Amino acid sequence: MALRTISAKNAAALDKDLMSAGAFSIDQLMELAGLSVSQAVFKLQPLSKGKRILVACGPGNNGGDGLVAARHLWQYGYQPTMYYPKQSKNELYQRLTKQLKDLNIPFTEDFDAALKQTDHVVDAIFGFSFSGEVREPFPKVIEALRDTKIPVLAVDAPSSWNIEGGPPESGPGKGFQPSALISLTAPKPLVKWFKGRHFIGGRFLNTEMAEKYGLDLPPYEGLDQVVEVNVEGLKL
Amino acid sequence: MALRTISAKNAAALDKDLMSAGAFSIDQLMELAGLSVSQAVFKLQPLSKGKRILVACGPGNNGGDGLVAARHLWQYGYQPTMYYPKQSKNELYQRLTKQLKDLNIPFTEDFDAALKQTDHVVDAIFGFSFSGEVREPFPKVIEALRDTKIPVLAVDAPSSWNIEGGPPESGPGKGFQPSALISLTAPKPLVKWFKGRHFIGGRFLNTEMAEKYGLDLPPYEGLDQVVEVNVEGLKL
Repeated sequence: MALRTISAKNAAALDKDLMSAGAFSIDQLMELAGLSVSQAVFKLQPLSKGKRILVACGPGNNGGDGLVAARHLWQYGYQPTMYYPKQSKNELYQRLTKQLKDLNIPFTEDFDAALKQTDHVVDAIFGFSFSGEVREPFPKVIEALRDTKIPVLAVDAPSSWNIEGGPPESGPGKGFQPSALISLTAPKPLVKWFKGRHFIGGRFLNTEMAEKYGLDLPPYEGLDQVVEVNVEGLKL
Repeated sequence: MALRTISAKNAAALDKDLMSAGAFSIDQLMELAGLSVSQAVFKLQPLSKGKRILVACGPGNNGGDGLVAARHLWQYGYQPTMYYPKQSKNELYQRLTKQLKDLNIPFTEDFDAALKQTDHVVDAIFGFSFSGEVREPFPKVIEALRDTKIPVLAVDAPSSWNIEGGPPESGPGKGFQPSALISLTAPKPLVKWFKGRHFIGGRFLNTEMAEKYGLDLPPYEGLDQVVEVNVEGLKL
């Protein structure tokens, strides 16, 4: 039995459903998604193994999840650094950014320099709504993520990967294979090509929505907002 | 060294500060507060000791925390039942209520009957903004909580207690001493009269706000959104 996945189109429809019929606000969903991301980092990179986390955020919701994750990481005792070159004018992202600045979390514009001084990277650049071309300044960032030996946790998708088709055959993301992936709500079809450790997060799905979209309720345990799974979707 | 507390007036000012200068939304804060409450329940009442949780919600923010907590409890595998007799027309509370109804969580109007069929109670009736009189239909509910042998976790304050002065000298809450209390963000002065297990939750305070209001950053560990403390505020 393979892990059931959700297409990019259905992932967008599910988000919309959660916020209309489901009555969730984006603030709520992003808080829980970002919290999941922070918990995956905690499991991948215990504080004792290095506290410096570089969080690369894109301009959309994927970046927003990274902003929330960074705040929780600070609360756990990590030292996050933000790379957020295309800051949205969206009010929610501005507030999430302010929350980080109030914690004196540094924002850098020099990704390469920051990468040399970190223990772990969170790739929150592009998520399930990505398609097409990687725009500036991200091509070099994705090349650096592809080439680094530092562990990378990708949020929802390794940035630049095609959501349905997986790794690109050309461009900066060709050969990019991050060490870990956290799929929010449900894995996307690209997971078929992914070779690292795989987590599922976003513990807010209900039975009805899972059925509607043909998904499994992930095998979360205890208080965890995240669960590591194998290729069959079973808890590791 | 005694645990540092925050007055009702300052708790209201801190909430306001978090939502203005701090740029948090009420959705975010309530999600994290309710998540803390659910984690305290998990620590007090492991699933193996009984899954039925009766959540009594008042008309304001304290009730909202209860609504969020119930959703997370369902996700952990508990069977929450809601007693929420004075449902607010506030849009946020209506959405939080819808989220519970989508999980088929029952809402009851008969508190006494529900109390006979539960393993644990969450008292989310009144919080730090309570003062004065206990209005209908809550006097009988508080009497029932006072008299029951079932464990009760009070959110922020045992309902009907005076925030600064502690247990009331008359009325339904006279002699009400719940088995556990979760103080959100920081303990209120009433904690001095409280004799049960004490948790702190709401892991979103930053150093600056803590200093401004003369508070300690609670000694959270790992991923916990909640910490059990002794009378000195040290982790148990």
